[in-house]
Amino acid sequence: MPPDRPFRGRPPGRRPERPFGRRPRDERDDIAVLYGWHPVVEALRNPRRRLRRLLVTENAADRLTETVGTLAIAPELVRPDAITRLVEPDAVHQGLYLEADPLPSPTLETLSDTGLVLALDQITDPHNVGAIVRTAAAFGVEAIITTARHSPSATGVLAKAASGGLEHVPFLEVRNLAGALIALGQRGFQRIGLDSEGSAAMGEIPVRRPVVLVLGAEGKGLRQRTRECCEVVARLDMPGAIKSLNVSNAAAICLYALSRATEDALTGASARSG
Amino acid sequence: MPPDRPFRGRPPGRRPERPFGRRPRDERDDIAVLYGWHPVVEALRNPRRRLRRLLVTENAADRLTETVGTLAIAPELVRPDAITRLVEPDAVHQGLYLEADPLPSPTLETLSDTGLVLALDQITDPHNVGAIVRTAAAFGVEAIITTARHSPSATGVLAKAASGGLEHVPFLEVRNLAGALIALGQRGFQRIGLDSEGSAAMGEIPVRRPVVLVLGAEGKGLRQRTRECCEVVARLDMPGAIKSLNVSNAAAICLYALSRATEDALTGASARSG
Repeated sequence: MPPDRPFRGRPPGRRPERPFGRRPRDERDDIAVLYGWHPVVEALRNPRRRLRRLLVTENAADRLTETVGTLAIAPELVRPDAITRLVEPDAVHQGLYLEADPLPSPTLETLSDTGLVLALDQITDPHNVGAIVRTAAAFGVEAIITTARHSPSATGVLAKAASGGLEHVPFLEVRNLAGALIALGQRGFQRIGLDSEGSAAMGEIPVRRPVVLVLGAEGKGLRQRTRECCEVVARLDMPGAIKSLNVSNAAAICLYALSRATEDALTGASARSG
Repeated sequence: MPPDRPFRGRPPGRRPERPFGRRPRDERDDIAVLYGWHPVVEALRNPRRRLRRLLVTENAADRLTETVGTLAIAPELVRPDAITRLVEPDAVHQGLYLEADPLPSPTLETLSDTGLVLALDQITDPHNVGAIVRTAAAFGVEAIITTARHSPSATGVLAKAASGGLEHVPFLEVRNLAGALIALGQRGFQRIGLDSEGSAAMGEIPVRRPVVLVLGAEGKGLRQRTRECCEVVARLDMPGAIKSLNVSNAAAICLYALSRATEDALTGASARSG
């Protein structure tokens, strides 16, 4: 298989879609299901999260009040298996389960003029998107733009992998990613796509704010139309035998490179990376 | 929870250990179980892999011979569920299942004098270690040093997450990581640890080859003795609200930073990162 796209994770044989029937609670769009220590603690600390229902085990309750203090919602004390039944098999819930409203979304118009924004072009794996959210929170990303279709919801597995990051990086869902990128361009956003065929090495391109970094799915990369709406398409140069990265690892490297480049620009050292 | 260690993934409530009994086939040490497209294809292409048994579905067989050509082992044609029964629940095997011998390991003495080596201090999650292997293969890491205890085996889930990377980055298992680091130091290896309390920012430290990068587990970080055996302990500066990264994302950023720093050193531009 010749290297053709930056991420070639899961080729043909994907996990089958759920055949029929009602989606389980932790995959519904109108409710955010959060479980596990970091997701629940960060949500309880987030004044913008409207809480609906909190289930905790006796053990977790003590640690929780020690850490968070007074809870904004009265917890229901339950046995661990009551939570196990509500989440996907093998989920590590650590005795904490919270149902809440999804967070309010920003709009393209309300994004700041100095921000760093991420756009995900149909990245479907919730583990990967969750890991990206966590790293985005660490690098101060203002919002994550996702497509209304072919994107996982900000709940369940994704929230768990985000490890609390979801409370700090709102999702901004758009119907048409190309249109959104054009609108951001008109607002002065630099638009950087990532692709193995990119014309410049990430880390060498001059970066200005505001900026949006656009990532495609493993295996498929950026869609043609998405790529056309980027000002520059950058690549990651990798000296090793394997030329593809897990998409969350690629995102982490790009966010690091962008934050370094922005720092350089601010300290007037940008000339050094020509 | 104040930030205390670089990675704080899964706090107290860990997944319980398997209680008793024989370990399943894909977790045994004396056999490497590889399934899914990239792991199996890369293994079939690796002349150093001793193959024992290859199961493929009819669909996968056609694609496989198209891609790899003549197979070094005669495949057994099976139905998909025959493979499903051999791997962990929900594993995406894509109709390919291979049993092989573990790869031969290098020794500390045979590592090259110009290499980049990774050392993992009791990182137990096979998904994370697999993702690290994949990225290590992309950045030309020569070997991954792991501890004999508290490390997952190079098989099954780990191999799947490594997406073929396992064929390019051998594991080097040691009983005592501190001792191994001291021995590498005597061989001239620069030893860089990663910790949120690090004294220098990763990306700012001058890097020389050979070099070993030492990573600790999420939540625990480097053990005290491991930290003492590093020449420099570096941190990743993150401007955002969350100060911890998934360990594979942290590894990816460090490998990128090290490969950039080495490049700079080779092109005489190292002065710029003071």
